[in-house]
Amino acid sequence: MSEALRVTYELTCRPGEDPEDKARGVALEQSAELPSRCIPAHVYDEVVPRIEALEPREDGRYHLVLAFPEAITGYEPTQLLNNLFGNISLKSGIRLTDIQWTPALLRALGGPRYGIAGVRGLLGAGERALTSTALKPLGLDTATLAGYCADFARGGIDLIKDDHGLCDQASSPFRERLHACQRTVDEANAATGRASLYLPNVTAPRGELEARLDAAQEAGCKAVLICPFLTGLDALIWARERYDLALMAHPAFAGSVAGAEHGLDPALLLGEITRLFGADMVVYTNAEGRFPTYDQPLCERINDRLRRPLDGIRPALPTPGGGVDAARAGYWLERYGRDTVLLIGGSLYAQGDLTAAAQRLQAVVEGH
Amino acid sequence: MSEALRVTYELTCRPGEDPEDKARGVALEQSAELPSRCIPAHVYDEVVPRIEALEPREDGRYHLVLAFPEAITGYEPTQLLNNLFGNISLKSGIRLTDIQWTPALLRALGGPRYGIAGVRGLLGAGERALTSTALKPLGLDTATLAGYCADFARGGIDLIKDDHGLCDQASSPFRERLHACQRTVDEANAATGRASLYLPNVTAPRGELEARLDAAQEAGCKAVLICPFLTGLDALIWARERYDLALMAHPAFAGSVAGAEHGLDPALLLGEITRLFGADMVVYTNAEGRFPTYDQPLCERINDRLRRPLDGIRPALPTPGGGVDAARAGYWLERYGRDTVLLIGGSLYAQGDLTAAAQRLQAVVEGH
Repeated sequence: MSEALRVTYELTCRPGEDPEDKARGVALEQSAELPSRCIPAHVYDEVVPRIEALEPREDGRYHLVLAFPEAITGYEPTQLLNNLFGNISLKSGIRLTDIQWTPALLRALGGPRYGIAGVRGLLGAGERALTSTALKPLGLDTATLAGYCADFARGGIDLIKDDHGLCDQASSPFRERLHACQRTVDEANAATGRASLYLPNVTAPRGELEARLDAAQEAGCKAVLICPFLTGLDALIWARERYDLALMAHPAFAGSVAGAEHGLDPALLLGEITRLFGADMVVYTNAEGRFPTYDQPLCERINDRLRRPLDGIRPALPTPGGGVDAARAGYWLERYGRDTVLLIGGSLYAQGDLTAAAQRLQAVVEGH
Repeated sequence: MSEALRVTYELTCRPGEDPEDKARGVALEQSAELPSRCIPAHVYDEVVPRIEALEPREDGRYHLVLAFPEAITGYEPTQLLNNLFGNISLKSGIRLTDIQWTPALLRALGGPRYGIAGVRGLLGAGERALTSTALKPLGLDTATLAGYCADFARGGIDLIKDDHGLCDQASSPFRERLHACQRTVDEANAATGRASLYLPNVTAPRGELEARLDAAQEAGCKAVLICPFLTGLDALIWARERYDLALMAHPAFAGSVAGAEHGLDPALLLGEITRLFGADMVVYTNAEGRFPTYDQPLCERINDRLRRPLDGIRPALPTPGGGVDAARAGYWLERYGRDTVLLIGGSLYAQGDLTAAAQRLQAVVEGH
């Protein structure tokens, strides 16, 4: 007997919009998509979510909990997203804020393959906090980017990723950059005794995405960067199932999915859903950086969603970035804890000597 | 020498937010993603979009035109989306409203393979308006759904698609439904002399998506339904390049990307971008149906984007649905013209006798 997938929405009603009508509308739109009178009774009970709760809130919104029969997802990740927020995404005043997963759906999605412990294992990093940076800007040639990669690796940065805007541009073609950077990281590690990783950005249209994953694994990479909101979230599942590569997810194009009054709560989308689809590390835009809509309470909720116990699902590493100041590394680790990857780019580049800047950061992070 | 891709954004500034800072921030965030002082001068000119216009509007917003060096897209559709709205999606008050494409990017994307004329050719439909309906609800068994398919085909509906919520659920497994419905349509066409098409929903995680496209083509289908905002938009390009199947795109999950103050303008996203990625027909939620945020002016802008001349790119068919009343078919065709597919579901099911309802609709549409 299949279980109920309990999904919570916050409804904002327009003047004159009845909350019960809105709630029933959500239930129908996300399942049978026909007026009740056109739905055979036996189908109605098997398919249409039941309204478990509809309660007014102090701010005038309504808290709605729907119990979906899990079988309507077909246990497929694409159909799951459709059931959660497919047609209702085209409406207004509907915000998806929580999901109480069923065991079968958790198994179907699977979560991270490496998780926090697995990434620590790849890095030989014990229990300390981790660091990441980005090779940038787009437009530099491969030799320069590979030089930066070497500088960061010699300074001990754990996860040196392509900027998510680097793909296969003429200025630094993918395969040329892949081999050059992996080589410099291997050379630096041989000298330092560390296990820094280079993460190429494999984001690409399907067909080419697979080819870049193949190339990354053959080149000896242990992890890659993917932008799942550009490729489709199922690209994470695909990569997890077929490659021995830890997956760092970047949120490019996701933010517009996460609105205040309408959309998916960013903590749910970036924290929980991206983790369940297989990301071992999830980049998000940290508070007090360049992205003001992400405040510290939201960031802490993202961290919690990434790390909280979920039956049979490994935790994933929060990777706050987007304007993090290296001088405040200790401050962020106090707040976020050691199961965190601090992603710092511009603040290291601004210091000029990348190896020295990296060493200073590592000293703070490893001493925390 | 590469050309400039001109992109228009509407900026809504928060109190105290300087529009010029915001504009420069967009330009940097969508390219080099570093503070200007950290970007080598030669890279800056080659990579960072130039601000061509920044003008206040009457409503207090700012009209921004950026000229992107097209090469930063690498001519890849995933990177293109990243450059257009990747990181800035995580900000607020930035709305992407227009794109002036370069010839090279139009060629790289390619547009529809069949287009309006090609779909008309598959249907033998001459110049008249077209009709579509959906097999629903989810939860019915294959025999019942195939029976509806037969009813609609005998009534002359041109494009009989799976409801986008039907995938591979136990109630009607994909391949069983595919073969049953294609068979009923073939039988009906043999009796009527028409060329109605059955469109299975091939939306699925990668791997399975390709298998369903294979199965659809082998079963004799001429067109399929895809939800590109669940699969990733590049699934359209993939399908276009490898299969002899016209593509109907459904907007499930798109609305969350398309906002009023922040996000992509729906006409640009559903009308132009979805067309350029290869959709021959684009479903959208019609005015005066179940989706109040889509008013008639917006629908007309979507239609215009789908059909307007774009160098080397075929036009695509607007497919308004989502609560269209069959009794108002003439009204919509007056407004939208004959290069339209009217998608009507619930309004036909409510009439009971599906063949008779379809025939009535076809009489109006074919007489228009």
